[in-house]
Amino acid sequence: MNASVSIPSVLNLRPEAEQAPTSGIVDVFSYGRLKPGIIPLWVGEGDLPTPSFICEAAARSLSEGETFYTYQRGIPELRQAIARYHEGVYGKAFDPERFFVTSGGMPAMQLAFRMLSGNGDEVLIPTPAWPNFAGAITIAGARPVAVPMTIDAQGWHLDFERLEQAITPRTRVLVINSPSNPTGWTATHADLRAALDLARRHGLWIVADEIYGRFVHDPALAVDGRTPSFRDVMEPEDKILFVQTFSKNWAMTGWRLGWLEAPPALGQVIENLIQYQTSGTPTFIQRAGVAAIEQGEDFLADQIVRAKRGREIVGRLAQTGLVELPPPSGAFYAFLKIKGATNAKDIAFRLIDEANVGLAPGSAFGEAGEGYLRLCYLRKPEDVEEAVRRIGEALPRLVG
Amino acid sequence: MNASVSIPSVLNLRPEAEQAPTSGIVDVFSYGRLKPGIIPLWVGEGDLPTPSFICEAAARSLSEGETFYTYQRGIPELRQAIARYHEGVYGKAFDPERFFVTSGGMPAMQLAFRMLSGNGDEVLIPTPAWPNFAGAITIAGARPVAVPMTIDAQGWHLDFERLEQAITPRTRVLVINSPSNPTGWTATHADLRAALDLARRHGLWIVADEIYGRFVHDPALAVDGRTPSFRDVMEPEDKILFVQTFSKNWAMTGWRLGWLEAPPALGQVIENLIQYQTSGTPTFIQRAGVAAIEQGEDFLADQIVRAKRGREIVGRLAQTGLVELPPPSGAFYAFLKIKGATNAKDIAFRLIDEANVGLAPGSAFGEAGEGYLRLCYLRKPEDVEEAVRRIGEALPRLVG
Repeated sequence: MNASVSIPSVLNLRPEAEQAPTSGIVDVFSYGRLKPGIIPLWVGEGDLPTPSFICEAAARSLSEGETFYTYQRGIPELRQAIARYHEGVYGKAFDPERFFVTSGGMPAMQLAFRMLSGNGDEVLIPTPAWPNFAGAITIAGARPVAVPMTIDAQGWHLDFERLEQAITPRTRVLVINSPSNPTGWTATHADLRAALDLARRHGLWIVADEIYGRFVHDPALAVDGRTPSFRDVMEPEDKILFVQTFSKNWAMTGWRLGWLEAPPALGQVIENLIQYQTSGTPTFIQRAGVAAIEQGEDFLADQIVRAKRGREIVGRLAQTGLVELPPPSGAFYAFLKIKGATNAKDIAFRLIDEANVGLAPGSAFGEAGEGYLRLCYLRKPEDVEEAVRRIGEALPRLVG
Repeated sequence: MNASVSIPSVLNLRPEAEQAPTSGIVDVFSYGRLKPGIIPLWVGEGDLPTPSFICEAAARSLSEGETFYTYQRGIPELRQAIARYHEGVYGKAFDPERFFVTSGGMPAMQLAFRMLSGNGDEVLIPTPAWPNFAGAITIAGARPVAVPMTIDAQGWHLDFERLEQAITPRTRVLVINSPSNPTGWTATHADLRAALDLARRHGLWIVADEIYGRFVHDPALAVDGRTPSFRDVMEPEDKILFVQTFSKNWAMTGWRLGWLEAPPALGQVIENLIQYQTSGTPTFIQRAGVAAIEQGEDFLADQIVRAKRGREIVGRLAQTGLVELPPPSGAFYAFLKIKGATNAKDIAFRLIDEANVGLAPGSAFGEAGEGYLRLCYLRKPEDVEEAVRRIGEALPRLVG
């Protein structure tokens, strides 16, 4: 469902570049984005701009002349702040040398796949999944292998049997995204142990995306206000790379600031790759990151409350009986299916026309998402209420 | 001279990642950077921070809440400003659809090589050359092929015979960097026509790096205050990608803002690649770019004067008779050879110890640069004067 682009052969491009898929959200987004009154719940960001104390840290740095080239691994102050952040969240010590500042979660992921997979290698991705995993793998020349999760009345589940069957001699990496974008599925410690065991037995790396880890809604899963993490079950020698971002916790989607967590032994390789990737992240943006970590817990707490409220409101759609919506355990997305509907994109277009609400078609998240729609509920409750009301009105016309 | 990194095989990294070379400047830089009183002329940036009107444009954008995801190709206002900038500099019309905003010149280059070259492909680079060309090509899985330029009393020259001989069935791209970092060599229109002719005959793409094009010192080469450009000699259907940056003209090295100029037919491929590379450039940084283009000509004029003055001062080293230094026609680097010296890195370390001046070893720019040192003279004249005085004093001890 994510189309590749066809370029005149006279231009003689590299096939992997043409195969980099166009986002399956973009045509729905382009169709509806300028419609007056639309409630936009298609993109993975909330409605609040970045808090002013974060913006002011960047402005201050700029006015102090921090506009020169800087450390490829990130400024020491931010690497130390990230280590302290991890100590607070995971309750143990972290070496700042494990953390490499990147210009967003996406570049962190790209660094990870570049180090681990190349021409002809295979990377396992449980699906539905954020399409940028497959995109980053494809342009690295490797092959993303979708392994559908299973779904029942309790929700989505990792299918370890399918994962094991999908492993070939070319498999190099297993991606685990928990809490999941788009489904909200959240791994238990047992899931994480099983994934780690699988990776160890087959010599695979794990790329762990736990960026929504502070957004936990199922009390049975919460560990000190966060979701279970590989950090709880791994040994120091385990081959795991963590990708992270400032985007979600601190409403910094537009800043392009994140980090990669990796064994310090990879430091020089990562530094070199950053040199040829972005040549580092602006110092003034990194200062904003320090402010976010040091002063941002109250804002994050408000974001989490906002997400919980949004989740409750969206949950009402399930009560209509016209929608399947397993309650998401984490993150801030509802992944819902309108009963009998088969073509997610058609429904997404109709919801723009008939309800003036923008949702992302599930088909953008892989074949396993066909028929579903992703709704981001990290928004002021009045907007989510109104969106749910409008969708509810349109529902009887949309069921198959 | 640019070392690759060796990682324990148990970590099982992709070979291209380990082969990404460590910068040949970094150990000299690390050795000397904290030395009190050092005059740092090793990096390609001047001593001035970004002008305040540019910083203020970013701060204003931040305070207005422009902190969300944005267009992958760049905000329309910046793409239009870049098109107008080109119209002013090159004296003809440019379609804004040709311009794609990137998070620096380096990502622009990476996008270019990703589109044009992959596993097993070859890219020709006249050397001495900025090492990041080879770095970006290597991590794309392709092979950088160094083609040494020739040097005589008049300076460096592109050797078209050698270039033609280096072409194989796997050759896909020819890199032309004029004015050159590190040598200051600047292509004539005849050079550009010859390079274009070579590329056309062999079906190659050209990646053109003309980022120092406003810094022209040889009056015989100047065209309306800029260096000759492929834009003067190309046809619309020629396969040329231009990489560009805000770093040099407007003292914005630390901002990570640049652009790729490409045929509009490649737009969707480039948009997709940007999605998986950086997911776009912060809007507030792009606003700073608009300010730089619209209000930055006076600052740039001052930078050019500063470079010309620095070049004159450094030229005195040639008068000692102990240094070979063909006058650079463009950019803001002197690429000099201390007579009889063979190991550039040794000399660079000794210059730190004995003159407290930081230069980049020429070996970092390829084998053709061995024995040379790169000196960035875009700095206040007093500093350049003092650096030249100190180097002059040390010279008699350094000649081989």
